[in-house]
Amino acid sequence: MGHIWLAQQPCGARPEFLTAQGDDLPVELYAKAVDEDTSIVPVTHVCFKNGFRSSVREICRIAHAKGALVLVDDYQDCGTRPVNVKELDVDFYVTGTLKYLLGPSGVAFLYVRKELIPLLEPKISGWFAQRNPFAFDVRHLDLAPSARRFESGTPPIPNIYAASAGIELLREVGLENIAVQIRKLAQLLIKGARDLGIRIKTPSDSMGPLVVLQSGKVEAIIGRLAAENVICSGRHDGLRISCHVHNTRNDVETVLELLKKNRKLMEPGTNAA
Amino acid sequence: MGHIWLAQQPCGARPEFLTAQGDDLPVELYAKAVDEDTSIVPVTHVCFKNGFRSSVREICRIAHAKGALVLVDDYQDCGTRPVNVKELDVDFYVTGTLKYLLGPSGVAFLYVRKELIPLLEPKISGWFAQRNPFAFDVRHLDLAPSARRFESGTPPIPNIYAASAGIELLREVGLENIAVQIRKLAQLLIKGARDLGIRIKTPSDSMGPLVVLQSGKVEAIIGRLAAENVICSGRHDGLRISCHVHNTRNDVETVLELLKKNRKLMEPGTNAA
Repeated sequence: MGHIWLAQQPCGARPEFLTAQGDDLPVELYAKAVDEDTSIVPVTHVCFKNGFRSSVREICRIAHAKGALVLVDDYQDCGTRPVNVKELDVDFYVTGTLKYLLGPSGVAFLYVRKELIPLLEPKISGWFAQRNPFAFDVRHLDLAPSARRFESGTPPIPNIYAASAGIELLREVGLENIAVQIRKLAQLLIKGARDLGIRIKTPSDSMGPLVVLQSGKVEAIIGRLAAENVICSGRHDGLRISCHVHNTRNDVETVLELLKKNRKLMEPGTNAA
Repeated sequence: MGHIWLAQQPCGARPEFLTAQGDDLPVELYAKAVDEDTSIVPVTHVCFKNGFRSSVREICRIAHAKGALVLVDDYQDCGTRPVNVKELDVDFYVTGTLKYLLGPSGVAFLYVRKELIPLLEPKISGWFAQRNPFAFDVRHLDLAPSARRFESGTPPIPNIYAASAGIELLREVGLENIAVQIRKLAQLLIKGARDLGIRIKTPSDSMGPLVVLQSGKVEAIIGRLAAENVICSGRHDGLRISCHVHNTRNDVETVLELLKKNRKLMEPGTNAA
């Protein structure tokens, strides 16, 4: 998300970054940084680097008190538990089907608080944003009154079918059930890694879905795991393990056994960032 | 494309539209409209409404003489013949795989004249635009020196496989061969429609791929054709028929027979625009 906001600097934006305290980004940092000059507070619900979970409601309270809007990026969590944008009180919420919604890349979602919709005119537009796309009136911008005004051109249609299938599957299982299972697995993985003496970058009370373990040889451990059909990713010095409802205790035990076997690759190393 | 440029008005853009003379948009209109204040001349290679083909090289000469850039949208033609952006002398060229490239929606292409690349900083960015996407350095915008700087987030990966298959198929047939076949079919269709007394909105010397016939009952004729497995689209008072290399003379004859049978639906009507 950083790149997206940094790219707005030619329009006058002055992005400010908060600096995590260790693996934690306490809400007090937002309270200190947000003032009357703050236009928008972009928040990652779950951090892509260490799985830290932001206190969205509290951040909204801080931002709104100063007249700032809040945008939540839920890409790293959506699909793992129920989410209610109105309860969270966010102004914007974005996510996509690529990750825990079990869909393909190419389909993303934007929620905009209803009162804000008519006040916002997108600079990226197209025929799908028009009140009546089939008017083919290329000489007038006649934005839809609904959130459809934020669409642009023809979307990637085939992907929508795959995306729907993923969402239907998750709803069939039930998002509450999914959350319970993911928390169990995340806690099992954190406990097991701790017992192996591995440094855990994810806060210890994490409900998942990301569990990130420190490794001095991230690429090497990813390769060893992949050889045993355990697919993980790496971000800087973090081995990133994702739990979802289709995973079992057995999966977690397999990972832990492989980590034990490759314990040396999990020492802190020189590729930290 | 109109919507895209109209949406730039809050940034100070003042879009100006040329008005076609009948079904023709002569190059002289560009010569009259383009002056030293013109920043960019967006040109549709083939018009989505009537299949008119723009004289891109001449438009580039006019625009460049006044210091303006030219962007060509080739969505309605790419895949039907060889195209050489350097010979055309365009500054920007955009297209996508959805139409004559026989691919899905979701994959589009942007060409930028090499000298312009380092001068342009996109306001829509993301990790794929960075010099090293895998640096995951969210605090700095470090745009790739190549045209990759115009990418944004994760692209719709599955669509790329389908897009590649379409392009490979076209290359196997050969774009020169495809152009010959399409021109033959377009001319056959134009001649046949003329013989039926139908008004043709496409210039009579058209090499295709679009042939647009006037109809007072576009939706009705589309329905009649669809019932016989002939899939067409409509734009205002135009029945839009697309020829591609997989079509045969037989296909054109089938269309003409159906038009003859439904000749009344091809009278000029009240839905013109």
